[in-house]
Amino acid sequence: MEDFVFELEFKVRDYECDIQGVVNNSVYQNYLEHTRHEYLKSLNIDFAELAERGIFLMVKRVEIDYQRPLKSGDSFISVLRMERISQLRFGFVQHIYRLPDKKLMVKGLVIGTSVNKRGRPELPEELIKVWGFE
Amino acid sequence: MEDFVFELEFKVRDYECDIQGVVNNSVYQNYLEHTRHEYLKSLNIDFAELAERGIFLMVKRVEIDYQRPLKSGDSFISVLRMERISQLRFGFVQHIYRLPDKKLMVKGLVIGTSVNKRGRPELPEELIKVWGFE
Amino acid sequence: MEDFVFELEFKVRDYECDIQGVVNNSVYQNYLEHTRHEYLKSLNIDFAELAERGIFLMVKRVEIDYQRPLKSGDSFISVLRMERISQLRFGFVQHIYRLPDKKLMVKGLVIGTSVNKRGRPELPEELIKVWGFE
Amino acid sequence: MEDFVFELEFKVRDYECDIQGVVNNSVYQNYLEHTRHEYLKSLNIDFAELAERGIFLMVKRVEIDYQRPLKSGDSFISVLRMERISQLRFGFVQHIYRLPDKKLMVKGLVIGTSVNKRGRPELPEELIKVWGFE
Repeated sequence: MEDFVFELEFKVRDYECDIQGVVNNSVYQNYLEHTRHEYLKSLNIDFAELAERGIFLMVKRVEIDYQRPLKSGDSFISVLRMERISQLRFGFVQHIYRLPDKKLMVKGLVIGTSVNKRGRPELPEELIKVWGFE
Repeated sequence: MEDFVFELEFKVRDYECDIQGVVNNSVYQNYLEHTRHEYLKSLNIDFAELAERGIFLMVKRVEIDYQRPLKSGDSFISVLRMERISQLRFGFVQHIYRLPDKKLMVKGLVIGTSVNKRGRPELPEELIKVWGFE
Repeated sequence: MEDFVFELEFKVRDYECDIQGVVNNSVYQNYLEHTRHEYLKSLNIDFAELAERGIFLMVKRVEIDYQRPLKSGDSFISVLRMERISQLRFGFVQHIYRLPDKKLMVKGLVIGTSVNKRGRPELPEELIKVWGFE
Repeated sequence: MEDFVFELEFKVRDYECDIQGVVNNSVYQNYLEHTRHEYLKSLNIDFAELAERGIFLMVKRVEIDYQRPLKSGDSFISVLRMERISQLRFGFVQHIYRLPDKKLMVKGLVIGTSVNKRGRPELPEELIKVWGFE
């Protein structure tokens, strides 16, 4: 696996599967979001505290490639690394691998930005630092 | 049908169905909640405005009887009437009927209460009035 | 805690929380369902294999008491024990306790039955045995 | 609006909103999927019947641009047109516009393919025809 910086293990829950007996396509966004939020917590990045200072993180774009479907009973790990997209945009590169065979199931790129109180893009110093974006 | 005071029409969405090809049991709670919220809006009962005055509505108990399963492609109506449960508790009696045959699919009773700023149960006058609970 | 026979640990995911900042009422049904399915798997009760033999397990009724709301970041355990409701109905008694303080958040009773190929209620011997219902 | 061939009206349901008070990012995929399925039904394209003939439609890639967030109480229309991506891949171009002001909220591109019994890509004649892909 490429140099991912965070990983989280999950197990498919039956209510996440649809008529085809596989995880519904939209549910992968739930997995990816939960992974990002746990990653940010692991860095002590606190949405609420940022919001109080007038910094709002938001998702601007999501790209998901579906390689193979997860099924009822599958376990998997969701991994993540950061990528600078532009001066003001950051990307979460996120992969999902089935366990135990480590087959790549889903690849995602989630592009975010942060906006200040006046609605203008502004990437706070602490994020630039923690993500090694200088 | 019994004397229901509100109704809302829905159509099953495929992502709401599970491996068995029927609407997942938990999704009926989504249908029932959406029906209650639309009903309250139709009465001009505004959660946000109540909250500002320190009145918080909350669900204390849910009872759902599953009679027949809704399937992909089904349309249905969700109907509602109020019932006073006790001095401080009110009940939403909620049924779901499939269309067009009006078969009863699900029966629900959702019991709520309201709490004031000090965390004490308090049913505001406007709810008692609008629900005919005097 | 009462004599529960199965437990599963969870962590609240942010997408499960609603505008009030707490886990949406319907999501507890997801937690309870996942707990039941994992419990049945732990007993080697296989839905698919039962279905092939013409035995279908289904939920007939759900009762949920909401005591306290789970919030973003909360961990909890979901525990379960069986109760015979009638000749043909079985109940899953399910509690959710927040961690680490073990406060009771939600109490559920989920009543199921099983039906044979001819649509008639029939509780298979292996379930009667495994649940100690003789 | 560009030359869309199908539209469906929705209303945001409160359980679809998250802690930020806006529709959760993953829920847009539910809206987009429901729109696609209703569109295919409107063309009399029947998944089940295709599957019996050994033709399986599947989503390979999703791109979503989030322009503005939908909120509790918002109504919107979800519109769609087809685009040929390659010999064997087709794209659903999907936009979501808030009502009544028709502001563009979300843009999606959902790329699908179809696979035959032997697991090989094969786009059936009836889809090529109905989508004007000759």
